[in-house]
Amino acid sequence: MKTIRPPWSESAPTPGSFRSIAKYGNPRAFKHPSDAWVRMMMQEFGMTEDDFLQRRQEGLESVVVDKPSRLSEAQLNALAAIVGDVNVAVDDYSRVRYASGKTAEEILELRHGVVREIADAVVHPRDKGDVQKLVEFCARERIAITPYGAGSSVNFGCRPYAGGISLALGTHMNAVLEINEVNQTARVQPGILGPAYESALQNAPERFGCQRRYTCGHFPQSFEYSSVGGWIVTLGSGQASTYYGDAYDLVFSQEYVTPAGSFRTIEVPATATGPRINDIMKGSEGAFGVLVEATMKIFRYAPDNRARLGFMYPSWEAAVDASRQIMQGEFGFPAVYRISDPEETDRGLKLYGVPGFADPLLERLGFEPMKRSLCLASVEGDRDYTRLVSRKIKQIAKRHGAISLGSIAMKMWERTRYAEPYMRDDLNDFGILIDTLEAGVTWDNLHRLHQGVRSFVKSRPATMCMTHASHFYPQGTNLYFIFLARMDLEEYVAFQTKIIDKIVENGGTLSHHHGVGRLLAPWMNEHLGVEQMAILRAIKRHFDPDNIMNPGGQLGLDEIPPRR
Amino acid sequence: MKTIRPPWSESAPTPGSFRSIAKYGNPRAFKHPSDAWVRMMMQEFGMTEDDFLQRRQEGLESVVVDKPSRLSEAQLNALAAIVGDVNVAVDDYSRVRYASGKTAEEILELRHGVVREIADAVVHPRDKGDVQKLVEFCARERIAITPYGAGSSVNFGCRPYAGGISLALGTHMNAVLEINEVNQTARVQPGILGPAYESALQNAPERFGCQRRYTCGHFPQSFEYSSVGGWIVTLGSGQASTYYGDAYDLVFSQEYVTPAGSFRTIEVPATATGPRINDIMKGSEGAFGVLVEATMKIFRYAPDNRARLGFMYPSWEAAVDASRQIMQGEFGFPAVYRISDPEETDRGLKLYGVPGFADPLLERLGFEPMKRSLCLASVEGDRDYTRLVSRKIKQIAKRHGAISLGSIAMKMWERTRYAEPYMRDDLNDFGILIDTLEAGVTWDNLHRLHQGVRSFVKSRPATMCMTHASHFYPQGTNLYFIFLARMDLEEYVAFQTKIIDKIVENGGTLSHHHGVGRLLAPWMNEHLGVEQMAILRAIKRHFDPDNIMNPGGQLGLDEIPPRR
Repeated sequence: MKTIRPPWSESAPTPGSFRSIAKYGNPRAFKHPSDAWVRMMMQEFGMTEDDFLQRRQEGLESVVVDKPSRLSEAQLNALAAIVGDVNVAVDDYSRVRYASGKTAEEILELRHGVVREIADAVVHPRDKGDVQKLVEFCARERIAITPYGAGSSVNFGCRPYAGGISLALGTHMNAVLEINEVNQTARVQPGILGPAYESALQNAPERFGCQRRYTCGHFPQSFEYSSVGGWIVTLGSGQASTYYGDAYDLVFSQEYVTPAGSFRTIEVPATATGPRINDIMKGSEGAFGVLVEATMKIFRYAPDNRARLGFMYPSWEAAVDASRQIMQGEFGFPAVYRISDPEETDRGLKLYGVPGFADPLLERLGFEPMKRSLCLASVEGDRDYTRLVSRKIKQIAKRHGAISLGSIAMKMWERTRYAEPYMRDDLNDFGILIDTLEAGVTWDNLHRLHQGVRSFVKSRPATMCMTHASHFYPQGTNLYFIFLARMDLEEYVAFQTKIIDKIVENGGTLSHHHGVGRLLAPWMNEHLGVEQMAILRAIKRHFDPDNIMNPGGQLGLDEIPPRR
Repeated sequence: MKTIRPPWSESAPTPGSFRSIAKYGNPRAFKHPSDAWVRMMMQEFGMTEDDFLQRRQEGLESVVVDKPSRLSEAQLNALAAIVGDVNVAVDDYSRVRYASGKTAEEILELRHGVVREIADAVVHPRDKGDVQKLVEFCARERIAITPYGAGSSVNFGCRPYAGGISLALGTHMNAVLEINEVNQTARVQPGILGPAYESALQNAPERFGCQRRYTCGHFPQSFEYSSVGGWIVTLGSGQASTYYGDAYDLVFSQEYVTPAGSFRTIEVPATATGPRINDIMKGSEGAFGVLVEATMKIFRYAPDNRARLGFMYPSWEAAVDASRQIMQGEFGFPAVYRISDPEETDRGLKLYGVPGFADPLLERLGFEPMKRSLCLASVEGDRDYTRLVSRKIKQIAKRHGAISLGSIAMKMWERTRYAEPYMRDDLNDFGILIDTLEAGVTWDNLHRLHQGVRSFVKSRPATMCMTHASHFYPQGTNLYFIFLARMDLEEYVAFQTKIIDKIVENGGTLSHHHGVGRLLAPWMNEHLGVEQMAILRAIKRHFDPDNIMNPGGQLGLDEIPPRR
């Protein structure tokens, strides 16, 4: 097949355009699919050279919305009196930008110039005092508040279904306030993005006069464009979570402003003083109140100790078995640990441009396409610890028929780990839809969930389905499904709905680390059961009796408006 | 000083007597203070040989209570119809037994034949179906339910302040139902005691046809007389928690029966589906509903890999510093890890009968009495892991001026670890009061809390105060205070109240692993703050609108009746 070079977009979107909201990350950063991937897509999707001649529905138009703000002049003045004029915006662009996350659906709609629910104003609080006054004012006036961290939500979590205000927490509330070196904790504002947070920790001696350098241990794929507050309230997981823990595990204490009052949870490593408020608040997705400060656990930064490992297993089953032995082996845990199913393994080899000779070589060794399974891992911590854990992983891998790929594959992965999301813009430019869903699962249910979802997705012709597990525990892991196909949005929404059905039917959780938002809300009653949803609703009623905090279906707590 | 041998009790209490309820553990098991301890007490408390001539207030009388059951004949019949005649008891002895925990206060009162609140009947459910029917019936009839696990509560957690029924969960609901070897979990009934649970896991091949042997990882001092359900609902910690985690960390999923309905939480290693119900229920101390089943994480049983360590540090400060380095060292964690403050170290050496020559030897090496600090540790897990962690601990200990005591001290401690509570009966027999309080604390607040509590306790003449830290985390630990003195109950209650004040004033949590019960309830509003208590009360109202679940001050959720 002829190698073609599609006219990938290489220019930053025009300021004020829909594309400037839809595009991922840095406006001037791009990552294009490899030549091999283009060939693969042409083959899989029956696309011709003509299909790649010209970009489509790029969303180049300026954002204009025919939805006047429903806040009164008096209300807007009151908001401005709290945060200052410059921190209240009612222009169309701001209102759309801070209403948008990164679901496939809203990205495609933005490219078509379609706008759904937006807030009546965007407010940028300067500090927690502002948030306190805003929540009091909005509670009095029954104005809805939708907190916005950094907009990496993939479930309509920051879409202001009931209008009111979008609360932009990243504009001002984005500092590391304190590093406590004795306790190894950092007190931060919720709107700080990953890189600024990590940089402050790594530069703790220069920035805070600390004796050591630290790391936050939380590196989701969205690291560069997600906020610490967002990690906590949506229960995110970083790519090194197998060692460092999920966001849930990293939170030492929190401070919230809610319509029912403000509070800071006690700072202790453990306490037996009844159900732990610090944990009850995690995952509340802005529906209970606003997270205004968090004290996070931090870790010694020792990049030189990092060991990088890569393996090819003869089969997915072997990779899963070995991984379970590793996680239950009681010798410590790797930091990053990922296994790719056969489809992802083969497509991944192509995506990362593994040289053509590698493939036949692997085959000759018995690692057959659509059977073999890639494993990437890194180990962090004390140097002797990383050596021990690496050695144990290698031993178990070998016993399960894997060959070592050395450290090169992991290094390649590290280099591009945050760049993957950029490819979506390229794919969308040529009518190819890409999306993901993910679920937590126990070991004994992993294959059923994998097959259950996969067999449904693959029953649709010309549809790619790549799966990996990337967050491990002694009791199980997660499955992360990536779908690619040429289909329109109508079809996709129906398709996605059925995939979620399959996840629930096959015993996965609705989400392992993306959160619920509104996307998954319709399944919550069935998934948790009405008795458990009633608990969450009771807590919601306590905090927010007038339902002003992120109302409109978030977490399935109240009625979910039709999505489209 | 002359060595005297007090007439320690060596006979099992008469069945039906107050003493049979007050005495700890196995009626035929005893552990007496060493000769050196008797000498020490005589010296510290100014006691003479006469004081040890005769046991006092032994509680030998038969339990008789002048409190007729307030349940009607019809209600008692209805209860019997649910669980069977044989499983409803209204006799005085049962009602007192299942109302009693192990606070110093109630033990002393029992010895005096004083009985406080008791239930109107004791009901022994056969299974969770029975619990369901009982909760429904009691909700309808507004009959209070006080769940009783194994009665090791040290905070009046199972005292039925509002009468009604004591729900004895250990009588029938005490089995391991299933071991899931793939997920490494065990599904158990709540009333099973530690030894039966651990034995089922260690004998998993014989009992469940498993391939491996397992351990539960949870070994509180009350291990032999506490229940798995109790561990969970009171947020207990085992002595090996530094590696295995607290009870909080060990719970994979739970099933509850509440007045608002029954539910089982989902079984997954992690989920981002909103605030985690599985965690909200932990620590609910019977006030939300009845825990009827739990799935627990389990671990590979590898006793041969266990490494045992012991160190003497020149000072408490050095021991604390070294411990922090160990917990933040990122090379893994020891299982048991304990450091004793100088007073506990010196009294401990005497208690364990360390030969007289050891003391001068230690002194000669610069480890001075009332300065030196004992550290005991064990490491479990994979053999190479235990070697690595042991080596690292030794290195850090050495750097902090400690000398190794080899494995002997740890072995001695292991042999007597569950026997300590037996000594209370001996001490009480001769008018000596012993009690404990404990708190969670961050590293940066440890010395303040230690000194704050200690200086208050030691301001009372003739009062021993021994302190250790025994549950460690990268961010801090706990402090466990043991008090001994000759004082009457009136004075003690006032003294205890002031100690608790000191804990709160100095930034400890009200409890690290004993729970709240009613003892600590009066401090909860101040400790958590009214906003956070309001959250717990809102959840309580949801589950139990008529306040039938363990009412009367538990967790500080409703009004706390005067204690005495």
